Amino acid sequence: MKDLVSYCPIEEVMQVLSGRWPTLLVYYLKDGVKRFSDLKRDNPTVSHKMLTFELRKLEHAGIVQRKVFEGYPLRVEYSLTAGGRGLVPLIDALGDWWDQLPGAVSMQPKIHQSALTGE
Amino acid sequence: MKDLVSYCPIEEVMQVLSGRWPTLLVYYLKDGVKRFSDLKRDNPTVSHKMLTFELRKLEHAGIVQRKVFEGYPLRVEYSLTAGGRGLVPLIDALGDWWDQLPGAVSMQPKIHQSALTGE
Repeated sequence: MKDLVSYCPIEEVMQVLSGRWPTLLVYYLKDGVKRFSDLKRDNPTVSHKMLTFELRKLEHAGIVQRKVFEGYPLRVEYSLTAGGRGLVPLIDALGDWWDQLPGAVSMQPKIHQSALTGE
Repeated sequence: MKDLVSYCPIEEVMQVLSGRWPTLLVYYLKDGVKRFSDLKRDNPTVSHKMLTFELRKLEHAGIVQRKVFEGYPLRVEYSLTAGGRGLVPLIDALGDWWDQLPGAVSMQPKIHQSALTGE
């Protein structure tokens, strides 16, 4: 974790959820238990290393739980914790909000003014 | 914008909101209009370049609007758009969820098992 600058929960939660994978993984886990290979299939462009890293981060935060079944081969299953399931409706709400966002009225940057003010 | 892998709004919205600053800036703008220097004061550790970049990204997405008042010196004001204001309760809900998340039951990584499976 990087040092926080604001000491507010928003900054903390964004340290965990930032990037492409965390919210997608929560979304793919919302329907139940998945194995590593299932998640890899759901996200074919994620590397093995990155998927491991992201799952560990979510586990560390208490969003995902990892269950190991002894035997050969070892079976490892991932699922959302009770707390992690509480994130699903929030992610849905963010997606709905994004879908309804009209977008910028003008995409033209005001170059000449920016050059003057540097802002 | 990076290429999307999932074609889902969650991935798109996280491309805009990921990182430390976007949600913090929305949070600081929720009470009304701010000038660049106000936002710099609210976030003393952000660089001028990064703050400019993040504000442009939020403007581009239609979350923040930038208003320029001619004159000397130029006055530039930032505020949330109507759509951007819809993000505020979602950010609040995320913060509340994070505060109530019990955290991981065990923070001990299962090293020996991971070494066996690579998962």
